Amino acid sequence: MKSLDQIFRELGTDNAPGQEVRQSVQHGEDQKKGATLAGVPVDFSHGDVDAHPPTPSALQAWNQGFERGAAQAYTEYRGLDTLRQRVSQDLGTFTGAPVDYNSELIITPGTQGALFLALGAIVTHGTKVAVIEPDYFANRKLVTFFGGTVMHVPLNYGDDEVNRGPDLGALEKAFRDGAGVLIFSTPNNPTGTVTAAHVIAQIATLAQTYDVTVVVDQLYSRMQYAGEDSYTHLRADQNAPKNIITILGPSKTESLSGFRLGVAFGTAALVDRMEKLQALVSLRAAGYNQAALETWFREPEGWLQDRVAAHQAIRDDLLSIFNGAGLRTARPNAGSYLYPRLPDLTISLTDFVRFLREQAAVIVTPGTEFARQDTNRIRLNFSQDHQASIAAATRIIDLAKRYAK
Amino acid sequence: MKSLDQIFRELGTDNAPGQEVRQSVQHGEDQKKGATLAGVPVDFSHGDVDAHPPTPSALQAWNQGFERGAAQAYTEYRGLDTLRQRVSQDLGTFTGAPVDYNSELIITPGTQGALFLALGAIVTHGTKVAVIEPDYFANRKLVTFFGGTVMHVPLNYGDDEVNRGPDLGALEKAFRDGAGVLIFSTPNNPTGTVTAAHVIAQIATLAQTYDVTVVVDQLYSRMQYAGEDSYTHLRADQNAPKNIITILGPSKTESLSGFRLGVAFGTAALVDRMEKLQALVSLRAAGYNQAALETWFREPEGWLQDRVAAHQAIRDDLLSIFNGAGLRTARPNAGSYLYPRLPDLTISLTDFVRFLREQAAVIVTPGTEFARQDTNRIRLNFSQDHQASIAAATRIIDLAKRYAK
Repeated sequence: MKSLDQIFRELGTDNAPGQEVRQSVQHGEDQKKGATLAGVPVDFSHGDVDAHPPTPSALQAWNQGFERGAAQAYTEYRGLDTLRQRVSQDLGTFTGAPVDYNSELIITPGTQGALFLALGAIVTHGTKVAVIEPDYFANRKLVTFFGGTVMHVPLNYGDDEVNRGPDLGALEKAFRDGAGVLIFSTPNNPTGTVTAAHVIAQIATLAQTYDVTVVVDQLYSRMQYAGEDSYTHLRADQNAPKNIITILGPSKTESLSGFRLGVAFGTAALVDRMEKLQALVSLRAAGYNQAALETWFREPEGWLQDRVAAHQAIRDDLLSIFNGAGLRTARPNAGSYLYPRLPDLTISLTDFVRFLREQAAVIVTPGTEFARQDTNRIRLNFSQDHQASIAAATRIIDLAKRYAK
Repeated sequence: MKSLDQIFRELGTDNAPGQEVRQSVQHGEDQKKGATLAGVPVDFSHGDVDAHPPTPSALQAWNQGFERGAAQAYTEYRGLDTLRQRVSQDLGTFTGAPVDYNSELIITPGTQGALFLALGAIVTHGTKVAVIEPDYFANRKLVTFFGGTVMHVPLNYGDDEVNRGPDLGALEKAFRDGAGVLIFSTPNNPTGTVTAAHVIAQIATLAQTYDVTVVVDQLYSRMQYAGEDSYTHLRADQNAPKNIITILGPSKTESLSGFRLGVAFGTAALVDRMEKLQALVSLRAAGYNQAALETWFREPEGWLQDRVAAHQAIRDDLLSIFNGAGLRTARPNAGSYLYPRLPDLTISLTDFVRFLREQAAVIVTPGTEFARQDTNRIRLNFSQDHQASIAAATRIIDLAKRYAK
């Protein structure tokens, strides 16, 4: 069994979005080349809620929640019942299968909170967990923290449009080799790849066959671009496994990240465990903040379409820029992540990311956070000011050329 | 090693404050006696933020935080640096020893979040943890969740005013027997007992001698009543142990519970681990909510004194009522908890608590949540409307007589 020292060494956050300020080790200064590139700073490590502001009326909903006082401040650990009733209906409609508000839904402090509670409810020492590469960097760390073992499964993205999503052969092998849990995101973080309908159906069948518990992170599933295949919700599949938790929240498309709200819904016995764990972790999602969920899925007519269109326009421009410069980048089907491939560099990825920050005022997340082998990729969250992100992308390209082999 | 089934069985929350609505098993209906007692319902399981409203200007601070936008929505995982600077100064002054804002302080989702992160940073399978009885019910559950072993240490409260606090003989025995961690609250939850100065000094010396990591939950330490001995902060003791985390927050005296804010401060290496764990648990305390900390320790002149006086008046009235009726109740030195002893009952404590709810519209927390053997005690959080709480206390006494042996 790993010691706490070992575990916390593996949980490094130095390269996590927003944590760059805490980096103290500075290598490679002597390899720095050329002048600083001027431009509006862009932090691609997370979305910019100033460029794409929170849902209209979220502010008002919060203030009304505060005025309600005690009833809103102290909710059940799983969240205010009237809100769960409302949200469960919209989630049922959105995902295509009903959600029982009383037993199958929990409101959490962000989708990060939902992921933590879900894995805490099902992963313990010895649990083997199928984790996709690349995928959200916390997944691997969560498995480590709870004492489980990661079984890596590659993601098909980019060229293989037909089989987009977790590689089914590798996935079945992981299940055969004893994985009891699968966690994956769709749209995938960092690539924006939406798992194809036939792959979702196969995952459902495999999970049912091998009695695997599935955690599906669908955080970006409301930002679906025009002209892409339709999005498929695993939980609505006729063969959906007995134990499944779906995770969603208003932090991204809706820009409510500052409220720290998420939801997890699915198997009642797992939601029960998650609530018990939430009682220990933080009692509940902040009471007044929960009130902002009243606006979720109830945005003004046309608001969601406009938000998606604005992001699609940025996506298309960035794709032209990166692919035009020879930095091969898969087209995200949904969400606001882009995962460009850099040329072979004369410096390490860590140094490149740091030089990008120091010489070009651009913050990105290194690919190695998402897949061990992605030493030549960076992730951009392009939920940014349109013009600033285009200018920043050209600076990334300039610097990539500067440090190319 | 315990299975997840075992662990989650031990993490029951049915009797936790606010969770009564989820109780489904109903025994003992045939033992119910007498008529319903009319009166304003009082939920003593937690404070009433309508009766004692949030700090003035917290609302405004939140709205200003929201207006600041991205800078407030996305903070470092350990919290916004400017807020940490401000709060660390006030905490240093309050506790009598400096706090380095950059390395020794983390802002958490409530003090519950702080407790979770602290124990997650130091307890793993095999860690022996000295836990006080009675003490906050989550402490024991947290140790269980992280795979540690609880070593029970009794609390001196009530009659022994001189040695108030953890029993030093039992504590040293626990340390000798291998406890690597001590967690305790002062003021104690549920008794309101403040650990005496000479006991704090002894705990410091013992912890240093046996190299024990100490987590001190001081959540209620700002509500100190007139005429009591002065409060002693362990972290400022000249022999304070190398590894110590102090926990505090604005949820109680300041009624900011709906914001879910807490802080933990102390040993930098432990704060580092806590931040790594926070990155997995929920990323950060909700960004906009953090802004409410700007009001903490900066309340208007006289505000804190008035709040304490209002609670002291309720305390004194309730003590007269309970002790006058022969329900022996220790005087809380600080905080808003009261821990009356019931007469021997003809029914179980669980049934009594339920009948109290159903027949007298009074919610209390059973003593068994705080100490296994406290089958004849109940905890009241008397941060309530003054008149309503007095009336509710008389209903408790009526029902205690009704079900007395």
